Amino acid sequence: MPETSLIFPASEYRARITALQARMAVQGLTALLLTSPADVFYTTGFLTRFWESPARPWFIVVPSQGDPVAVIPAIGADLMRRTWIPRIETWDAPDPRDDGVSLLAGVLGDIVPESGAIGLPMGLETHLRMPVADYETLRARLAPRRFEDATGCVQKVREIKSEAEIAKIRASCALAGRVFDRVPEFAGEGRPLDAVFRDFQIALLQEGADWVSYVAGGAGPDGYGDVISPASSDPLQRGDVLMLDTGAVKDGYFCDFDRNYAIGPASDCARRAHHALWQATEDVMAALRPGHLACDVHRLFDEALRGQGAETGGGRLGHGLGVTLTEWPSFTPLDRTPLRAGMVLTLEPGCATRDGRMLVHEENIVLREDGVELLSPRAPADLPEIGS
Amino acid sequence: MPETSLIFPASEYRARITALQARMAVQGLTALLLTSPADVFYTTGFLTRFWESPARPWFIVVPSQGDPVAVIPAIGADLMRRTWIPRIETWDAPDPRDDGVSLLAGVLGDIVPESGAIGLPMGLETHLRMPVADYETLRARLAPRRFEDATGCVQKVREIKSEAEIAKIRASCALAGRVFDRVPEFAGEGRPLDAVFRDFQIALLQEGADWVSYVAGGAGPDGYGDVISPASSDPLQRGDVLMLDTGAVKDGYFCDFDRNYAIGPASDCARRAHHALWQATEDVMAALRPGHLACDVHRLFDEALRGQGAETGGGRLGHGLGVTLTEWPSFTPLDRTPLRAGMVLTLEPGCATRDGRMLVHEENIVLREDGVELLSPRAPADLPEIGS
Repeated sequence: MPETSLIFPASEYRARITALQARMAVQGLTALLLTSPADVFYTTGFLTRFWESPARPWFIVVPSQGDPVAVIPAIGADLMRRTWIPRIETWDAPDPRDDGVSLLAGVLGDIVPESGAIGLPMGLETHLRMPVADYETLRARLAPRRFEDATGCVQKVREIKSEAEIAKIRASCALAGRVFDRVPEFAGEGRPLDAVFRDFQIALLQEGADWVSYVAGGAGPDGYGDVISPASSDPLQRGDVLMLDTGAVKDGYFCDFDRNYAIGPASDCARRAHHALWQATEDVMAALRPGHLACDVHRLFDEALRGQGAETGGGRLGHGLGVTLTEWPSFTPLDRTPLRAGMVLTLEPGCATRDGRMLVHEENIVLREDGVELLSPRAPADLPEIGS
Repeated sequence: MPETSLIFPASEYRARITALQARMAVQGLTALLLTSPADVFYTTGFLTRFWESPARPWFIVVPSQGDPVAVIPAIGADLMRRTWIPRIETWDAPDPRDDGVSLLAGVLGDIVPESGAIGLPMGLETHLRMPVADYETLRARLAPRRFEDATGCVQKVREIKSEAEIAKIRASCALAGRVFDRVPEFAGEGRPLDAVFRDFQIALLQEGADWVSYVAGGAGPDGYGDVISPASSDPLQRGDVLMLDTGAVKDGYFCDFDRNYAIGPASDCARRAHHALWQATEDVMAALRPGHLACDVHRLFDEALRGQGAETGGGRLGHGLGVTLTEWPSFTPLDRTPLRAGMVLTLEPGCATRDGRMLVHEENIVLREDGVELLSPRAPADLPEIGS
């Protein structure tokens, strides 16, 4: 077994902790408690698919100075010892009497004085990955210490990707790009959509994905109504637009982009919609700069689409991307998050076609000081046709 | 697009709701609030991989009588409309001002009188899949209504599988069984472990998995030290024991079992360990009956392994299985959950070999009134050898 399980050198993780501690100092937090797979991976490098089991909670405590402490089920000790984390406290989970609560309360109680505050992500796009009754016990045990919302503290650090992270996301995008080129090998008239989804996942693995955490798509005449359903066994028909979307994972980093294909010759309606989305993406990529707000991207897309006579469809028109399939911010009219250089983002405009159907187009980018750098291989300007 | 997205007839879901409502009545709950992917799928049939995005919360409210209400992001409305749920309330998520909290408070406030209690899973093996700050707002808005732990209410219903569910788990087991038979095609001396993991996932898709939510494994001389790490690129060596474990998903139902292989001729140590695990599983399958407690299974395994001079290794020695990779109970010395007919369980004994290494063996079963019915194709009694 290799001595380290880390994808990056320990210095990468130390820099993240230093950045978190700087934010903690501003907010006056003595410790930060992290429970989500993404936050644990981000701070420690601990990468496993074992999160799929909801049985056990996992805790990382980041003190205001010094290295994080892992308070985790014993089953994870071997793997955590191969990260950079020096102090690892374990218990035999699941324990119906006390599932790590006393151990965690002890660690936090030693680090945080009674007048101190413990940060915990509590806001939009966060979950507490531990039983809520245990959280209430923990709060009572640690009183008068306060728990404070640390969503911003974590998000402002995680949202700026290092060059090492950007390289990982670029690699995930590249492998998915090779698969999108191969879609005509396994999609075409008469092929059931569920078989296409299966072959799409196989191709992602063949091209180098470690695993495929997300596949979505849709197919229908001049567009699809829904982009989150599992595939049906209905065969693709001439005149359908097929969309495939994936969050393939390599070294713990996601891509998230889609491609559209006409089955047979593309209709004028589908061709126009695709081109409007492609051109709107060109326009937004040319305009986007650090200092824009997330809501500005929604407005820019809406203007670009309306300028071409297209009707903006779908919900949010893009979002952050990294160690989860979607990260904040959201390109909606309401999200006023400032966009900064180093953010990795998806541009995901949707466009209504007819009868409640739509097309969705998606690219992955990193925002640089001087504008947008593409991470996904750019979609073709014209809707590709399969078997026309 | 098909009219229904349901895997089972609506009667299956109605029976589940009736069973939940019977438990709710005993506990005096006027409503049950569910937020996890598994609980949403279980009650509504809503199946999607979109849970991979942490951006949005989803809520199901089960009243004490009548049908559940879905309070969900608008992006899920199309798919939810193709389940059996008649009332669907939506909002445009994510909304940084109010991410469904007022809508949910309105629905719950109408259903539950001020003196009433709202059940929420809060205990072991549960998470609240919504921002904890929003939960606190919800509680304050609904006061003086009480929130009570409904972990037992949900678990006692979900833990008994219908014949329709058992058939789905049997199908997932069967497809994984076909893949385990094919492992010698892609694993052998010199093959890197990460390539084996990749081909294993490809084979699972080829044999009919909709997606592969979990793959784990390990390889080393006479066993492995860790069963939750991603695969390294180290090539398999003659003398290694290779273990592969999967949670492959078909129609939303998981299998979860593993198989071991010797690379080259098996050593006496590995052969003995494998046979001890196999025989202990035979013994436990012969002895297990409804009325046993979860901790009895741990004791039975420990006795059976010690009877063969083997040392029990690993943590828990099995668990529940169904709509998640692992469900309660846990076969530990501490879990006193009564085992009942209709429970689907994994039997997962581990056995220490040498130098901190172990072998783990796993089968999936359903407990019947008269004993155990295997769902996974039974492992061979003798450790299979690849390329000996």
